[in-house]
Amino acid sequence: MEAIEKALSFIIEIEKLKDVQRKTKPVGLNRFENSAEHSWHACLCALILKDYSNDPIDINRVLKMLLIHDLGEIDAGDTIIYSSETNEAKTKEKKGLERLLSLLPGSMNIELMKLWEEFESGETADARFAKAIDRIPPLLHNIYGEGHSWKQYGITKDQIFSLNARIGKGSEKLWSEISSMLEGAIKDGILK
Amino acid sequence: MEAIEKALSFIIEIEKLKDVQRKTKPVGLNRFENSAEHSWHACLCALILKDYSNDPIDINRVLKMLLIHDLGEIDAGDTIIYSSETNEAKTKEKKGLERLLSLLPGSMNIELMKLWEEFESGETADARFAKAIDRIPPLLHNIYGEGHSWKQYGITKDQIFSLNARIGKGSEKLWSEISSMLEGAIKDGILK
Ligand SMILES: [Ca+2]
Repeated sequence: MEAIEKALSFIIEIEKLKDVQRKTKPVGLNRFENSAEHSWHACLCALILKDYSNDPIDINRVLKMLLIHDLGEIDAGDTIIYSSETNEAKTKEKKGLERLLSLLPGSMNIELMKLWEEFESGETADARFAKAIDRIPPLLHNIYGEGHSWKQYGITKDQIFSLNARIGKGSEKLWSEISSMLEGAIKDGILK
Repeated sequence: MEAIEKALSFIIEIEKLKDVQRKTKPVGLNRFENSAEHSWHACLCALILKDYSNDPIDINRVLKMLLIHDLGEIDAGDTIIYSSETNEAKTKEKKGLERLLSLLPGSMNIELMKLWEEFESGETADARFAKAIDRIPPLLHNIYGEGHSWKQYGITKDQIFSLNARIGKGSEKLWSEISSMLEGAIKDGILK
C-alpha cells in the first residue's frame, strides 16, 4: 500500500473512537459523551486554559497529546478513573494504540507512541498540564449535571478530592477553582 | 467574573457543539456525526496528512484553526456545503462565533476570531490546507457509506467533482487520491 493509502486507512480506523462511550454526559445533553468529542473538548480546554499551567508548557505538544490520548480506547474501551487505573487496563490501551499506529506510514507511529507514553507517565510539564486538563470536563459534567456519574458509580467526595488533587500538579489555580466548585456541589447536596 | 470563571463558562458553552448534527455518518456508525467529534477527526487528519500540503505550513496553526472552525455552528447549525455557501450562512456563523468568543477573558477572542477569519478566507497556505482537510472526512463517509448523504440530498458527481476540486488548492496529492476514490465510487454505482 502507498503511504497516502495507509494514512487514509488510519483516518478511517480512528472513526471508531466516536463509538467509545464515556461515563459522563456533556452539560445540557441527555446522552453519554464519546471519546472523540471529549478529545476535541479537552484540546480546546487546554488552549483556553494554557496560561494557568504551573510551569511553562509547549501548548502545541499538549494539543497533540490530547488529540491522541484516548485512541487506545478503540480496542480497550473507556474505564472510569476511580476504579480502573490498573496496569492491566493501561497495557490493553497501549496495545490498542500500537495496533492503530501500525497502520501509519513512515515513522509517525514511533513519534506518536512516544508522545502518548510521555502523556501517560505524566512527568514532564506538558504531560502534567495535559493530564490536569483531561480531568476537568468530567468534573464539570457532574457539577452541572446533578452528579450523575458520581451517583451511578457511588463515588464519594473523599474519592473525588483525593483522585483529582492531581490537577494541582498541572495547575494549582485550576485545582483551586475546581475545588471550590466541588465544595459548592457538596453544599448543594449533589456530592456526598 | 474572574478570568478563570469566564474561561470555564466558555468551556461549558462550547459543549453545545456536541449537539450540532452534521449531514454524514462516520464510517461504520449508524448515526449522524456531530461537529465536535468531526473537529477532533479533522485535527488528526491534518496531523497525519500534513506532509501532503502543497506549500509549507505551520501545523500548529492549522490544528488551532480546525479546533475552532465549526464553533459558529452552535448558533448557526451545520449546513451542507453543496447548497449553502451563502453570505447569509457565513454571517450567521460569524455572529455565533462572536457571541461565544465574547465569553472569553482578555484578548483571546481577538486572536481566535482572526484565526477563524483566516480559515474562512482560505488564502494563506495554512488556511488552504485546513480547508482541504475539512472536506475529506465527509467524502470518505460517503465513499465508505454507500453515498448516503449524496443520495439523500441528490448530489451529482459533477457537483462533487467541481466543489471538491478545491482540495487541490491545499494538497494536489490528496485531491488526486480522493479523485480516484470518487471514480471508484462511480464504478461501484454509489455516485451518479
Ligand atoms: Ca462546517
